[in-house]
Amino acid sequence: MAKHPIEQLIEKADLAINREDFDTLIDIYSEDAVLVIKPGMNAIGKIQIRKAFEAIAAHFNHKLDVKQAGMKILESDDTALVLAKTVVSTPEAALIHRNATYVFKKNPGDNWLCVIDNSYGHELFSHEDA
Amino acid sequence: MAKHPIEQLIEKADLAINREDFDTLIDIYSEDAVLVIKPGMNAIGKIQIRKAFEAIAAHFNHKLDVKQAGMKILESDDTALVLAKTVVSTPEAALIHRNATYVFKKNPGDNWLCVIDNSYGHELFSHEDA
Repeated sequence: MAKHPIEQLIEKADLAINREDFDTLIDIYSEDAVLVIKPGMNAIGKIQIRKAFEAIAAHFNHKLDVKQAGMKILESDDTALVLAKTVVSTPEAALIHRNATYVFKKNPGDNWLCVIDNSYGHELFSHEDA
Repeated sequence: MAKHPIEQLIEKADLAINREDFDTLIDIYSEDAVLVIKPGMNAIGKIQIRKAFEAIAAHFNHKLDVKQAGMKILESDDTALVLAKTVVSTPEAALIHRNATYVFKKNPGDNWLCVIDNSYGHELFSHEDA
């Protein structure tokens, strides 16, 4: 079965993260996309998202490796919810498994863009606002 | 702090489910919304969604009770991802806790509508397609 265009896009994003190809990476996000950097801290828009990924790459000593071990896509018109089994490998830690949640939106040119990137899924609840 | 309009909408939906007020309930969904009935089985569009909720109500002997024990909302332009701690109470079983994922979209009239309703979150992976 042919891969869903969003699955291809996420593979492209993972490869771009691992290669630190931030130009390619940022093209996958909408202008006002939201990226959860960590629970309670979000980057908003392409400039902040690029800076966040640069900082993350440096933090992990340029050895970050991200991949998806599985993916489910629910689509409604121009909006899609992705539930992913994300595996993050860093030089210091054992493999980190995340139940990631991504939202994509189809633009008028029929291309999907990531509008919400929350690789932490329900781990957001580990951060409680005052 | 004032409640987010989406939080108010989800409260209204829960109340409508518990009261079996399907007219009110269905108003909260977009025309082509997707509801996960159970992993691997989706209802698409208002007519199927209404039928699914009627069948669910009957299945639980009209004693279903749904509420949210917590909610996180990530918003980008006209799209929002909701991560919810959903608690389902039925006559037969102990409380069921779900890490629900909902996607809402703002329509041109500035009202939010549910476009993807996946109360199962990553439990979708418990159903593997052949």
